[in-house]
This record gives sequence, C-alpha cells and structure tokens, in this order.
Amino acid sequence: MRDGQRIITASNRAPVSFVSEEGAIVQRRGGGGLVTALTGALYRAGGMWIAAAASDEDRRLARRGAIDVVVDDTRFALRFLDIDPRIYAGYYNDISNRVLWFVHHYLWDIPRSPAFGDSLRRNWAAYQQVNRAFADALVEESATSKGDSVHLVQDYHLALAPQLIRARLPHARVSYFSHIPFAGSTYIRILPTWMREEILAGLLGADIVGFQAEHWADNFLLACRTLPGARVNLRRRLVRWDGREVLVRIYPVTIDTDELVAAAAAPGVERERDRLASTLRGRRLIVRADRAELSKNILRGFIAYEGFLKRNPRWRRRVVMLAFLDPSREEVPEYRSYVRECLAAAKRINREMGEGTWQPISVKVGADRSVLLAAYSLYDVLLVNPVFDGMNLVAKEGPTLNRQGGVLVLSQNAGAFDELGRFALAINPFDVGQTADALATALAMGDDERARRARGLRGLLARSGLDAWVDAQLRDLDARARV
Amino acid sequence: MRDGQRIITASNRAPVSFVSEEGAIVQRRGGGGLVTALTGALYRAGGMWIAAAASDEDRRLARRGAIDVVVDDTRFALRFLDIDPRIYAGYYNDISNRVLWFVHHYLWDIPRSPAFGDSLRRNWAAYQQVNRAFADALVEESATSKGDSVHLVQDYHLALAPQLIRARLPHARVSYFSHIPFAGSTYIRILPTWMREEILAGLLGADIVGFQAEHWADNFLLACRTLPGARVNLRRRLVRWDGREVLVRIYPVTIDTDELVAAAAAPGVERERDRLASTLRGRRLIVRADRAELSKNILRGFIAYEGFLKRNPRWRRRVVMLAFLDPSREEVPEYRSYVRECLAAAKRINREMGEGTWQPISVKVGADRSVLLAAYSLYDVLLVNPVFDGMNLVAKEGPTLNRQGGVLVLSQNAGAFDELGRFALAINPFDVGQTADALATALAMGDDERARRARGLRGLLARSGLDAWVDAQLRDLDARARV
Repeated sequence: MRDGQRIITASNRAPVSFVSEEGAIVQRRGGGGLVTALTGALYRAGGMWIAAAASDEDRRLARRGAIDVVVDDTRFALRFLDIDPRIYAGYYNDISNRVLWFVHHYLWDIPRSPAFGDSLRRNWAAYQQVNRAFADALVEESATSKGDSVHLVQDYHLALAPQLIRARLPHARVSYFSHIPFAGSTYIRILPTWMREEILAGLLGADIVGFQAEHWADNFLLACRTLPGARVNLRRRLVRWDGREVLVRIYPVTIDTDELVAAAAAPGVERERDRLASTLRGRRLIVRADRAELSKNILRGFIAYEGFLKRNPRWRRRVVMLAFLDPSREEVPEYRSYVRECLAAAKRINREMGEGTWQPISVKVGADRSVLLAAYSLYDVLLVNPVFDGMNLVAKEGPTLNRQGGVLVLSQNAGAFDELGRFALAINPFDVGQTADALATALAMGDDERARRARGLRGLLARSGLDAWVDAQLRDLDARARV
Repeated sequence: MRDGQRIITASNRAPVSFVSEEGAIVQRRGGGGLVTALTGALYRAGGMWIAAAASDEDRRLARRGAIDVVVDDTRFALRFLDIDPRIYAGYYNDISNRVLWFVHHYLWDIPRSPAFGDSLRRNWAAYQQVNRAFADALVEESATSKGDSVHLVQDYHLALAPQLIRARLPHARVSYFSHIPFAGSTYIRILPTWMREEILAGLLGADIVGFQAEHWADNFLLACRTLPGARVNLRRRLVRWDGREVLVRIYPVTIDTDELVAAAAAPGVERERDRLASTLRGRRLIVRADRAELSKNILRGFIAYEGFLKRNPRWRRRVVMLAFLDPSREEVPEYRSYVRECLAAAKRINREMGEGTWQPISVKVGADRSVLLAAYSLYDVLLVNPVFDGMNLVAKEGPTLNRQGGVLVLSQNAGAFDELGRFALAINPFDVGQTADALATALAMGDDERARRARGLRGLLARSGLDAWVDAQLRDLDARARV
C-alpha cells in the first residue's frame, strides 16, 4: 500500500553527527530517546531525514544537500540544515528548552518565573525562522520525490512546521508527533496568547497529531478548545480547523529490544556486570537513570530513599542506590543549579547516613552505556519517578534487560504508566513518603510476586516491536488520505 | 417562594470576631472578600452562620451555641465552633493554605515542592475532623429549624462538608461556592489520588457547585472526569454522581457598592485624599493593592514598572507607584520569604532609579482602609496582575471609587476579567514586557478614551447589586429542588 511512497522525517537532531578526526570524517551515533525510537522509521526504503547540523562537519555537509548515510545496516538520505548559531540558540535554548519544555512539564516556580520580556519576542522570531527553514526543506524534498511523500514532523522544536508545510502543499500528508507531555488548558495560558495560538495552529497543520499517552492527547484537545475557530470533539479526539479534520491519536513509543539485548551481551557489559556484582558484596541494588533534567525528580528520589533508610534501619548497609546522571542542557542556568542541588543532596545523605565503607548513594555522572546496561541487568529495584514525562524509556529498557526479578517503581505521571502501570508499584512523584514506602515494599517483595511482575513487564515490552510505532502512524495517515 | 426557608451559611471565618477589652466584649468586623460578599446572605430573615472561633472570646461564645449578632443593622444567628488549636493549624495552615491554596493557584516550584510526607496524612486527618465538625453543626442547626433549610457552604476549607451533610441528610439542599480558582486536570494530579478523589466526592455532595468564572468551573468538570464513577457533561456543566445530578454554575461575586461609596465619603478618607494629593505634587499615580500573597504577582508588578521607567525615561519623576501590601498568612514560610523578596525589589528599584526626592515606589504595609480608599479615588492607573485569581475584588472596588478616569490594567487570569476585561487593558501576568507597555499605554491614553472605559466599568459594577450573587444561587437551588 505504500509503493513509491517516500517518508520524510524532520527532527531537531539527526540520528548521526559527523566530526573530523585526524583528517577523516567520522560518523557518530546520536543519543536520546527520540533517535532510538525513530531509527525504526528509517527501515523504510528511500527514507529521508532532515535535521539541524550539530557539528562543524555537519555544517560542511549541509552545503552538499542530501547525503547518503548508513546506520545499523540501514541506508537513508540525510540533509543537514546549517542554521546560524545565534538563531539556533534562540530557537533551541531559549524557546524550545526554557519555554516550551517548561510549559509542557509544569516546571516553573509560578510566583517568580517565567517573566517574559523583549527577549521572548526576539527568540520567538528565531524559533519561527528555524521552523520555516525546516518546512522549506521538507517542501523541497517533497517536490523532488517521484511518488507521494509522507512528512513525519518530530517534537516540540518544530511545532510550527506542520502549518508551514500545509500552507505550501495543501494536500500534503503530514503527521506531527510529540515525544513529551502537553500542558493543561490553564497552565498553557502562561504563554502569551499569540504564542499559544500560533503553536496550536502550527500543530493543527498536520493531519494527525500524535502523543505518547492519553492524558497528553486530552490536554492538547482541551487547549484547542481555547483556539478561536477550532471545534473540538473530545470523545472522538478530533479537531475541526481551517476546513479540515485533524485527528489526535496515541502512539506509545517503542524501544529496539533486539538492539538493546545485543548491546547488553557485549563482553564490555559482561565485565561491568562482574565488577558491579563484586562491589555490591551481596547488597541489594536500587537503580535510577536519568538525564540531569528538572522533570526527572532526582531530588525527591534521593530524599525518598533517605526517608526509606530512616524508617527501615535494618536496610542500612544492606542496600545501595546507583544513580546515573547524564549531563543535559548545561547551557541553561536552571539545569546547572538543579544538578548542583542533586549532587549536594546525595553528598549530604552519604555524610549523614553512611557507615564505615557503606555509602548509601553512588552518583555516576556521564557513565559509559556499558555500565548502565550492567546495572539494568542487576537491579533489585528500578526507581522511575518523573514529575511529568512524555513516556520515559528507562522504564522500558530496564525491565527488558533485568535478570534479577527487579521491581519497577513507576510514577503515575510518566507516559509509560499507561502500558506498564499494572506490573509496577505506582507512586505519586510528589509524595516522598509513598515513594519511600514503595522502595521498602519492593525490597521486601517475595520472589514469586517479583517474578510475576517482571514476566508481565517483559511480556508487554517484547510484544511491542520496534516498527509498531511508525507503522501505526503510517497506517493512520494512509487511512486519512483515502477518506 | 422562600417562606419559612432558613439559610445556613458555613465558612471558615465569621463576619465578626469578639475580643475582650477592659472587661467588655467588643465585636470586630472581619476583613476579606468572602465576608464582604457574603454579608448579602445575611439580609435574609432567620439567617444562621457557622464559623470557626478565631479569638479566645469567640471560643467562650462557642459554648453558648448560637448567639445573636447585629452587623450593618442586620441581625443574624452566629455559632462559633471551638476547634483545638493544633487540629486547626493542620486544617488551616497546612492543608488549606499550603496544599489546597497552592494547588488551585499553581504556586508550587514543581522540581522541588511539594514533597509530601507523613505530616500530610496527619494534617489531612485534621482537615477531615474540622470538616466533620462543620457538617455536624450544619446538620444540627438544620434539625432545629422549623421550615426548610438551605445550606451554603463556602470555599476550599470546607470541601468535604457537602458530602458529609448529604450522608446524614440525603434530601438536604446544599450549595458549595469556591471563591478561588480550581486546578486543571493535570496539575490537580499533584495531590495524592486519595486526597483528590475525596475532595471531588466531597464537593459533589452539593446540589450546585459554584465558581467565580467559567474557566474555574470547566477545570472542576475536567477534574471530575478523572473520578471513577462520575459522568461529566461538559456542555451542560453537569456531573452525574452517586445517583444524583450535580450542577456546576458560575456566580461572579459582587461588591457592596453602597457601603463602599459611603465609607469613601467619610471625613477621614477626605483628609487622606487631600494629604495624598499634596504629596503627589502633580505626579501621576499608579496604585496596586493586595494581600501579601504569592498569587498576587507583586514581584513581577514591580519589575514591570521598573521596565516601564527604563523604556520611558520621560516618565521618571512624573509618576509614583503606591503599593498597598496587606500582611497575610505570616505563619507560612513561603509567604514570609515572598514578602521579603517583594520589599527588597521595591528597595532596589528605589535605590537604582530614584532621583532626588523622587522615589518610584512607595510600599504601604498594613495601611488604614481610609488611605486605600483615598488612593482608589485618585489613581490614574490601577494595576491588578494576579498570576491566577478566583475573582479579585480590587478590580471591582477601585473603579467604583475612582474619580480620575483611571485606567484598569487587568490580568487575563483574574476571574474579574470575564466581566471587566472589555473596559480594561488586558495583560498576561507572566509577561512583564507587556505589563510595562500597558502601564505606558494607560498613562498616555487620551481623556475621552479614559472616560469611556471608566464609565463602562462603573456601569457594569453598578448594575450588579450586592444581593444578586446570593439570589442567583438560592433561585437555582429552588429550581433544583422542584425538579
């Protein structure tokens, strides 16, 4: 049904970046959940990916237009956009990461921040400019394509692109997917009206607007009710806008189980596993792994663990928390101070609760992936407690690799909760008392119950293959086109 | 249609409190918008009011059951509840002011607060206990009444009371009115599930749940959609719950215009007006008046004013901001630190921008009402910029008294915006740039335009009499009872 159909994906970051090393151009794999998820989209023949250049080498390659790239044995075309660094900073750091990310994750300290001023308007112009550059490239690539094109626009960096494509190609097939939560209909009013309306109208340029979880889809629909001219059907998840019908759908992102299992079988991971097991010396292991990110709730996670140790002194010296912290957005001052607070809290807890050689928390900043994969296989408890999270891939990756009957303690506000909640211990991420109790429950849980839950999680994660996520979106777009 | 009907009002605070002075018991009028609004309810014959004792004398009076009270020539029965101070602290400071007020006004710094622990459960038990004491008293008074009773339960302190009354009196007529905003359906998930569901079920014990503005009513309906067993009709603003239909309605609270105008005509106010006019020496006057409250956005108001002065140097020395700050909830640490920040910001701005004898901002902490009323009559601009506000009575009181063709700069997120917005300059309270511009626009506005807007505001405020608010609720309750 998709013969001759060309998939054009657009996202802020590309799956690969290039650097020059000793005269040779070296291809580096990108990180992050989005790339992992989207790799699936590339297994389609003739795929094209458009992304912002991230390195000097990427910028040089941008001049050559589309280039051929091979990742994981898959060949696709990649076109870098060379964006002026000052424009990029306004678009990426200021609007995407400090405004849109904050509004969709509820991260502001409302009595004090945000305080929008002139810089907001300047940065918004940069955001518009980058979105136009992406839309232009998508339209150009669409024009050079022989068959039909399908445009898959990824995430909040490119919220205006769907409408910009639609304006140029009224019959284009466009889907937009949001990898993150979506602000509620009151909280989104923090944005200036013009910005809120431009974002909503931008997204409604798509045929389908996709989300990770029902709650985020519903929030988008509720926000659309405030857009003059839009008519929203909440039950059918449908928005009538500009003479068209826009569908709102839920596509929980999947992980590449095969790749993950293969990576975890590498000798380097085996060595890390042995090393970790020997340092544990029979102690139980609680793992958390996060980008160093305001929404991940690292601070309350440490405080809950401290509360657990205080309430359950018999667990002291018998358990260790291994906290992986992946540095993130270090240009943003809110992130730097948050990371400082997290590290200070861990240090304080170790000072106040540590005994002899036993340190309750070990923070691993920027650790190798092999160390993380080793920890996944060995944990007794995996703590995933984001305040709000689009999906959270750690909650999927950990249980896929764990061999220990490890228990997943999972925030109700992670998108992953919709799928995995029934086999996890549910927590309200703001309730450190409940989180402490969940850690105790998980560690005290009998083997049968642990095994039952672990089996349940693995079963769910194995069933949802890597391609399912992209396939569902393409199928729905095709069905839309035939209406 | 209401012959023999007895109105029983319940609110945390009474309209009066009693103190012992030189051997005599002296009656003191309470403050706050709720009391102003509700005084209207007392103009009904046979009215009864139930409230928590606030003073030692109130506690002594509590032992006597209902007492006769006269306020503004109106006689009504008042029954104080004597609540153990430690229980009261958990109910009032911890749950009502630090949890419920915060959730409904979006005041938390999400990456860090709230962090619920054991004390939450203890304090919630206190909240339940006080709500039971109120419900018991309402049911008792209802039983001693000859005719029908109508129960008017006021505000978030008493969210459980409607259901507690309903459980004992299945056919009771109960309305609940929320004087504050209502949290959106994502933000309210910050509360533990059990607490959220108990609050929603508590409110749904009423026949009618009333709000100040459409947005807050809609948020309540959306929250009810998450309550297992509740069926919500958003369009008809109706919730089916527990075999009953609960109406959700909007009753914008009104002010006592006559009382206000009379108070402003007192000689003391006249003297303050002369004094203020002479200190202004021809300078233009911007006024703001708030409880010292996290939701009132005092800090951004000062920063916006500073921005206005920087952008419009020709206004320096020619304008003054008079900021009334009424101390509030000083037991709550978040409030103490906020007030410190506000005062420090004003001081800094005066130091950096002041010239000669001209100080840009004058902060009046805990000023006499006569000074405030004088300022209302003289302002050129009234700045009302809450981040979120149920209604905001300053936006109604100021324009009622102003004689200057003063311009109202009004937050889109104040409940009052629904009624007054078209004659105000609208601002997004998070946008200090826009707020600065609105101050400039207001000060530069021509006399005709100022007069037109001021006339419009006065017209709206004069039309809505004091009784309208209560009458509408009683009418709707009667109509419900006849169904």
